[in-house]
Amino acid sequence: MGKKILWINPVATNLFDETFKKEFEKVKQPDTMVDVVSLPPASGPTHLEYNCYEVMIMPEILRMIKKAEEEEYDAAIIGCFYDPALRAAREITEKMVVTAPAESSLHIAATLGESISIIVGRRKWIPEMRENVHKYGFGEKLASFKSIDMGVHDFQRDRNETVRRIKQAAQEAKEKDGADVIILGCTIEFGFYHEVQAEIGIPVIDASIAPLKYAEFLVEINQKFGWGHSKLYGYQSPPNEEIEAWNLF
Amino acid sequence: MGKKILWINPVATNLFDETFKKEFEKVKQPDTMVDVVSLPPASGPTHLEYNCYEVMIMPEILRMIKKAEEEEYDAAIIGCFYDPALRAAREITEKMVVTAPAESSLHIAATLGESISIIVGRRKWIPEMRENVHKYGFGEKLASFKSIDMGVHDFQRDRNETVRRIKQAAQEAKEKDGADVIILGCTIEFGFYHEVQAEIGIPVIDASIAPLKYAEFLVEINQKFGWGHSKLYGYQSPPNEEIEAWNLF
Amino acid sequence: MGKKILWINPVATNLFDETFKKEFEKVKQPDTMVDVVSLPPASGPTHLEYNCYEVMIMPEILRMIKKAEEEEYDAAIIGCFYDPALRAAREITEKMVVTAPAESSLHIAATLGESISIIVGRRKWIPEMRENVHKYGFGEKLASFKSIDMGVHDFQRDRNETVRRIKQAAQEAKEKDGADVIILGCTIEFGFYHEVQAEIGIPVIDASIAPLKYAEFLVEINQKFGWGHSKLYGYQSPPNEEIEAWNLF
Amino acid sequence: MGKKILWINPVATNLFDETFKKEFEKVKQPDTMVDVVSLPPASGPTHLEYNCYEVMIMPEILRMIKKAEEEEYDAAIIGCFYDPALRAAREITEKMVVTAPAESSLHIAATLGESISIIVGRRKWIPEMRENVHKYGFGEKLASFKSIDMGVHDFQRDRNETVRRIKQAAQEAKEKDGADVIILGCTIEFGFYHEVQAEIGIPVIDASIAPLKYAEFLVEINQKFGWGHSKLYGYQSPPNEEIEAWNLF
Amino acid sequence: MGKKILWINPVATNLFDETFKKEFEKVKQPDTMVDVVSLPPASGPTHLEYNCYEVMIMPEILRMIKKAEEEEYDAAIIGCFYDPALRAAREITEKMVVTAPAESSLHIAATLGESISIIVGRRKWIPEMRENVHKYGFGEKLASFKSIDMGVHDFQRDRNETVRRIKQAAQEAKEKDGADVIILGCTIEFGFYHEVQAEIGIPVIDASIAPLKYAEFLVEINQKFGWGHSKLYGYQSPPNEEIEAWNLF
Amino acid sequence: MGKKILWINPVATNLFDETFKKEFEKVKQPDTMVDVVSLPPASGPTHLEYNCYEVMIMPEILRMIKKAEEEEYDAAIIGCFYDPALRAAREITEKMVVTAPAESSLHIAATLGESISIIVGRRKWIPEMRENVHKYGFGEKLASFKSIDMGVHDFQRDRNETVRRIKQAAQEAKEKDGADVIILGCTIEFGFYHEVQAEIGIPVIDASIAPLKYAEFLVEINQKFGWGHSKLYGYQSPPNEEIEAWNLF
Repeated sequence: MGKKILWINPVATNLFDETFKKEFEKVKQPDTMVDVVSLPPASGPTHLEYNCYEVMIMPEILRMIKKAEEEEYDAAIIGCFYDPALRAAREITEKMVVTAPAESSLHIAATLGESISIIVGRRKWIPEMRENVHKYGFGEKLASFKSIDMGVHDFQRDRNETVRRIKQAAQEAKEKDGADVIILGCTIEFGFYHEVQAEIGIPVIDASIAPLKYAEFLVEINQKFGWGHSKLYGYQSPPNEEIEAWNLF
Repeated sequence: MGKKILWINPVATNLFDETFKKEFEKVKQPDTMVDVVSLPPASGPTHLEYNCYEVMIMPEILRMIKKAEEEEYDAAIIGCFYDPALRAAREITEKMVVTAPAESSLHIAATLGESISIIVGRRKWIPEMRENVHKYGFGEKLASFKSIDMGVHDFQRDRNETVRRIKQAAQEAKEKDGADVIILGCTIEFGFYHEVQAEIGIPVIDASIAPLKYAEFLVEINQKFGWGHSKLYGYQSPPNEEIEAWNLF
Repeated sequence: MGKKILWINPVATNLFDETFKKEFEKVKQPDTMVDVVSLPPASGPTHLEYNCYEVMIMPEILRMIKKAEEEEYDAAIIGCFYDPALRAAREITEKMVVTAPAESSLHIAATLGESISIIVGRRKWIPEMRENVHKYGFGEKLASFKSIDMGVHDFQRDRNETVRRIKQAAQEAKEKDGADVIILGCTIEFGFYHEVQAEIGIPVIDASIAPLKYAEFLVEINQKFGWGHSKLYGYQSPPNEEIEAWNLF
Repeated sequence: MGKKILWINPVATNLFDETFKKEFEKVKQPDTMVDVVSLPPASGPTHLEYNCYEVMIMPEILRMIKKAEEEEYDAAIIGCFYDPALRAAREITEKMVVTAPAESSLHIAATLGESISIIVGRRKWIPEMRENVHKYGFGEKLASFKSIDMGVHDFQRDRNETVRRIKQAAQEAKEKDGADVIILGCTIEFGFYHEVQAEIGIPVIDASIAPLKYAEFLVEINQKFGWGHSKLYGYQSPPNEEIEAWNLF
Repeated sequence: MGKKILWINPVATNLFDETFKKEFEKVKQPDTMVDVVSLPPASGPTHLEYNCYEVMIMPEILRMIKKAEEEEYDAAIIGCFYDPALRAAREITEKMVVTAPAESSLHIAATLGESISIIVGRRKWIPEMRENVHKYGFGEKLASFKSIDMGVHDFQRDRNETVRRIKQAAQEAKEKDGADVIILGCTIEFGFYHEVQAEIGIPVIDASIAPLKYAEFLVEINQKFGWGHSKLYGYQSPPNEEIEAWNLF
Repeated sequence: MGKKILWINPVATNLFDETFKKEFEKVKQPDTMVDVVSLPPASGPTHLEYNCYEVMIMPEILRMIKKAEEEEYDAAIIGCFYDPALRAAREITEKMVVTAPAESSLHIAATLGESISIIVGRRKWIPEMRENVHKYGFGEKLASFKSIDMGVHDFQRDRNETVRRIKQAAQEAKEKDGADVIILGCTIEFGFYHEVQAEIGIPVIDASIAPLKYAEFLVEINQKFGWGHSKLYGYQSPPNEEIEAWNLF
């Protein structure tokens, strides 16, 4: 059948699109086709460190989701660790599944260990992310958030420095907070998990690879068994007449 | 000093603006000036029963919030019981306070009794609202959600029928679920609280009056004691340079 | 209509009555009349650091509450951060609302930020206060308790030293515990919030001003909308015949 | 060594003292000496269905506790299922242990099964009792509260009717709520557990026997191993100088 | 690389082995090789409805797990919805991943909807399963357990009757309990999900297919990224010397 | 009547049997007869630091439990702080009660104080023990786990060193974590509680004495009032025909 997956970089820069595309080509399943899109350049924020930035591009996310389903994608990934607009995205799709970095990383991490630390860029990110960890049910498994005091666009600037800080935070998470598993809590913390994991010796989940693989998994069980998002209550779709009357997406 | 408050009807219809305005004039404090705005007609959804509808108008909410602060409003109320974009709204304001129906109704209800039932229009609304009840800390105080099987635009059509259903739901909430207090979980369930309360004999919180009064309260403690939203972590403001560079609001 | 509010200093000393009265005159609403009473001097404890002290004066609190309602007060505040006898007080009133420092401070703090630290005098106070924080629903929002190792009667002795310790504790709460908002967890920690807030830059809630303003808020919604304490289950009143037969209050 | 235990009926009637005494003589350990006291007749409420009744007699409870320790009792039981003034009582004792019906019944029930229902007289009792169940840590194990619509002084009036209602409630708790264990949530529901238990076939905990036996257990481990209440934080004793200066008990 | 997966039917009957094998051949990935084993016939229980049955065969599970890793299986599934010995199994493996029906079904269900009902055979099963639901973090998402009053060996006897009861329970879960997703809480409830799902219109998770697919997913991320179970704390392996000295497995 | 109690050292060494026996003789009630058994030497692990060790000897625990009931023991104690196979043990007994160190120590500690620290040998033990603390309902009362970095067989080697480390950990638990009560979280940490308690001044619960005394308590209420484990749901016994057919124990 094949799996057609869309990665949405919900930022107004294509700066990372090619890198993601390349990385995904290496890790995807053979029958997966993955596309990477971002918002039109200069149309909005180039990172989503603030919830208000998320909000401003959420409608564009939904339009992309809607279009993706029309173009017969089997899954879409909203590529930001705040998992922006995930409920809304699931409401407006009928067959396509939708996932996001925090959800997928947390499900994986909670299967691999019992105590999870999340390494973030800034302390500002923590309250919204903690809210999500609790919402997904993993509050009791949260060992700690660790901030390495870097913005989204700092991570890839001086990679040695970034790795150094991540390692230090991960080490503290292990030693002081009792973490069994580490999650790198930003999709732009890509390219580091392997080296950090090799050194600290516990699983280090990459927040861009995790949702890609989780999406493939969800697509497969949806295609084979019809196990897609329930449309009964939480993700119930709005009536088509309203969508059309209001010219919504 | 006076309190300048903006009620935002986050829907693309001014159908209810005048009614709200009239109602608020009756219940506001003498030194309060309250304005009611809605989205431009025909620019989007006329109700927000679906999370995806919320998302589509969230940016417009933020623009209105931003403009409201520039126009020196002391408080803004995002007038939908899902409390859409509340975190984002608090990020982008410096002095103005922002509140919303669920937050304010729940704080009041939890002070008046120990067990709360929320009467909603449709079961579809419950998952997102339950998420909010837990997020605000009142999960243990939730007796039940009761659905009366009506959409937002049905509430005011046959008022007798609406009252009949609300009374029945409230009675069940009292008798079977042990509710001490009832919240009418939609701003368009206005005009009913008084009659229902008189009959069932426990507090029935109106979701449009509650946030107006809570906003007045927040404005007063902000003006007198500087107790506004903390800008440290959860509601930290983004840097102005970014907002301007991206022409965000 | 006016708001007639009684502040009860539930201690056997009028040491602080005048100061409170003066302070309240400055911050109250124009139509509020606020009285401050305390227990007869030498009739009992002059502070309530121990739960057993609270218990010994609880009946006197109830008598004062009962009398306050007879004298047509609209609200009473039980002025100790343990919120002593709050449930009982709400049982015996019919129209008057009753609130207390912890309840009101926590509702305010949880609206202004997502993570709250409470600065107390001694570690002994923490278990009972933590119990209350959980009871009110704010357990998930509690960043920390910080003790500054002072008794109730030490706070106003060397004000510079008190301020120095509060600032240090607040700073730690911000930096190490991630607090968005600080509560000064004793009514006798009055007169400090302003200076501390100015320095540390996040809201610092004063535990005597907060309940006064919250009481005014509750009175207003009670007078206008009949939203007083639910008398159905948790705050149900005892039968008058029993009260009279036993000559209770 | 012997165990000297005091049962306090915290009500102003000696109506039940003799019955309790007789019952306790049958079930106590051989080396236990148990006394039963109540408040002076006509000095206050003869039942504690309301929290405000509890509050009014709490100081007298503390005086009795204090006196009991002076008279070298090894344990005291505060004989009401609301467990009134338990924290305060533990603060003012040095060696004597103190327990109460809800605490002891819940610890026993949670050891005998995983899901507990509590049969109460009136729905009014539930909110305060539920608060206690959560406080003690057994919230997740609570299957239900069942009310049989009887006041404290009704239980012993028509014993057949009482037994009939308890059996029906217990049956429902088993069948509909999944209860493994039943607690009779009032000390005056005495004399019924045996018959109900025989019929419904699961443990039915009597709220007066349970604390007596738990008290004996606590006394024994205190005498043998020094395992009494921790006096460090939560049950720290107040300074003697203050107690004396204020002539507290 | 291929995925070599072992399904362990932890019962002393090969009654279902062939059926499982056939079913798995239909649903597995092309590069997956799946074997099905059970305990030697007549060596113990043929179902695990009781925890004591589980316990008796747990050592044999561990021996099979140990042997599976030696035979270079990439994953093993412990095929009972109580997830017996899952922690122990993860301790004794180094590279092989281990999963089980409840864990995998719950992770899937919680991604597909927000409210989950589990249909079990007997009420006896519920307490242990509820314990697991909470342990995995999904307590807040549990709508209900529904019992259809059948033992493990009844499910496949009269399939029409079984389907009828499952449909009825699922319908109730949807209508009364607000479930978005259904889990069939026993591996022997196989062969029903498709028909039930088609009729009730929400996802119905089969507890034998779910862990197989989850195992494939875990194997893939383990092979590609080294994301296997953390061996730091919770699943730390015992020292080989001890295992050998005691001739453990 | 007498109380006949069996302590099961669930390890394949009789190294500690005599010591336990002696110790129990000193602390038991006069009418208690206590036997101590262990697994046959060289038949398995000599400590249970790993969950997989527990699992391997669980069937033997059940056989001993079954035999104990046949030999008319009134109670059995499964002597390891992980409380292995407790649910299963309760399923297979009809009259005999069963308890274990963590359960009994936690019930006692939660009655003596509000905040509990558990001193363990290694950090590896913590996840499974924390799971149990939450399962029993005492998660909110857990101040901390403290590891003293010693294996089970190290505790009694250099007793001075062990005491030194326990004291240091206990001191930290008091000062930094706010613990009211300490539990020594391993039965082989015996012989230390008295000295540590004397020095640090708060209750220090010994994990072998606690379950013995709790067992005596449970036996007494079972003998006198029929309050044994509920056999309805969670601890329901399997049918005898199955046990016999499968020759289970």
